[in-house]
Amino acid sequence: MTSSVGHDQEQATRRFDLARYLEARQAQVEAALEQSVTVTYPETIYESMRYSLLAGGKRLRPILCLATCELLGGTLEMAMPTACALEMIHTMSLIHDDLPAMDNDDYRRGKLTNHKVYGEDIAILAGDGLLTYAFEFIATRTQQVPAERVLQVIAMVSRAVGAAGLVGGQVVDLESEGQSDVSLETLNFIHRHKTGALLEACVLSGAVLAGATDAERQRLSRYAQNIGLAFQIIDDVLDITATQEELGKTAGKDIQAQKATYPSFWGIEESKRQASQLVADAKAELAPFGEAAVPLMALADYITARTH
Amino acid sequence: MTSSVGHDQEQATRRFDLARYLEARQAQVEAALEQSVTVTYPETIYESMRYSLLAGGKRLRPILCLATCELLGGTLEMAMPTACALEMIHTMSLIHDDLPAMDNDDYRRGKLTNHKVYGEDIAILAGDGLLTYAFEFIATRTQQVPAERVLQVIAMVSRAVGAAGLVGGQVVDLESEGQSDVSLETLNFIHRHKTGALLEACVLSGAVLAGATDAERQRLSRYAQNIGLAFQIIDDVLDITATQEELGKTAGKDIQAQKATYPSFWGIEESKRQASQLVADAKAELAPFGEAAVPLMALADYITARTH
Repeated sequence: MTSSVGHDQEQATRRFDLARYLEARQAQVEAALEQSVTVTYPETIYESMRYSLLAGGKRLRPILCLATCELLGGTLEMAMPTACALEMIHTMSLIHDDLPAMDNDDYRRGKLTNHKVYGEDIAILAGDGLLTYAFEFIATRTQQVPAERVLQVIAMVSRAVGAAGLVGGQVVDLESEGQSDVSLETLNFIHRHKTGALLEACVLSGAVLAGATDAERQRLSRYAQNIGLAFQIIDDVLDITATQEELGKTAGKDIQAQKATYPSFWGIEESKRQASQLVADAKAELAPFGEAAVPLMALADYITARTH
Repeated sequence: MTSSVGHDQEQATRRFDLARYLEARQAQVEAALEQSVTVTYPETIYESMRYSLLAGGKRLRPILCLATCELLGGTLEMAMPTACALEMIHTMSLIHDDLPAMDNDDYRRGKLTNHKVYGEDIAILAGDGLLTYAFEFIATRTQQVPAERVLQVIAMVSRAVGAAGLVGGQVVDLESEGQSDVSLETLNFIHRHKTGALLEACVLSGAVLAGATDAERQRLSRYAQNIGLAFQIIDDVLDITATQEELGKTAGKDIQAQKATYPSFWGIEESKRQASQLVADAKAELAPFGEAAVPLMALADYITARTH
């Protein structure tokens, strides 16, 4: 029974037009983000927030949130405010990561970084503004969802961003820089927190908004953890194999910075194999959801197939 | 009738032992803050967050939140998580304001600023961590309050901190620095947003948690706006008249930085008079609450009487 479902699901995933799906969802997310921040006095801060928020990107995080909510019978409308908030938070983390006191990056997604355009002071404040606005946006814009669930989403998302999540991962990343003896355990900690926690929050917040059971949450949590780690491994591989033009940011930075990466432990081929295994494990968690899980299945594949 | 209530209220306020009240509330807030952030791996970020969060201070913001909740029949327990969150947010704003890219301050409350101890990168992340944790804390720790009210508090607090509040005020403050033609209107904008919005959120969140009516909210909102502006005027006056030892931070910075201040428009004596008038107006809003409002009355007086 399960293997038959798995077979049908695999076939449906192969037939599924992911490119068209992503295009449609990206357009919906872009439109919602475009409307989310309007420019008013003092213009500088809103322009700076919009500069980074609307700088393109795959919008993978909001799409994961929307797709999970739909998988469990929720609507796009229920999840869109949270989806936008997750992109605001992701954008905040990029703005602050790029600062001279952190990674000191001049380019991001092929454009000058926020502080190169607006200055360090405004870039710090734009990050603070986006982070705060994310919570305001979830609290005020979410509709047709009981208040208890919305509170759970806020609790989940804030935990994923704070010292127990993204911020903690960034701290260990900074502390590990230039150290030659970073363990695989530490590398895993960094990525589970710096990238993984927010990706997991994207999936789980979509699930909570739609009213997921505990069992559903656990499956979706493992799905998210697996694709989160696969995502990071592929990122490390691409930093070595892709050119600056393909990445839209400075390539080879990890090697220059002598950063520990998965390829530095496993080599490039084994890293790719590990990422594929994680994606396979992620997809296996989706089997009980049947054909409704096809978008999340395809998204998992997409993560290891991407070249930039 | 009203004037009799006002008279009784004034007499009760004079009899009220504010020093003992503040001491008791400060101790309760300190204890709650002490327990709010525990140190775990990666220790650096939690230590950095605690360093600034537990650096003393009057805890005026949490106390305003607690006092307003009690005024309307709520309990301390209902408001304590939000009260702590408001202090986390205030602390975050100080950490980021003190950064070299912003006000570049070495001392705060008589201690080295966060970035002087932990470095700029950790200081930025400690601010991000405290800001995020504030929302997590409200969402997960608030008890005996309906979820709808908790969501309203999160919406209110986040709005007060973001580009429409504190962050926006800081942006205009930065843009006005070194300009000789800053208008009184702009100065008011800065302080209504940079200091006033959060103080108002302290009072209003306490009110919402206790289930305030619209009319009560409006009175308390005007009370908070008036004491917020009075607070800032006195701050400007103290920057000129107090010594560094009394302030616990670098004195005379406004003059050095050629910042527009209320004394630069009105002189010191008129500034003090304006602050007193604002406090009188603030207290007038409390008349209908009778003797229950005595702590908030005394707090309003305290703000103009303070010398550091």
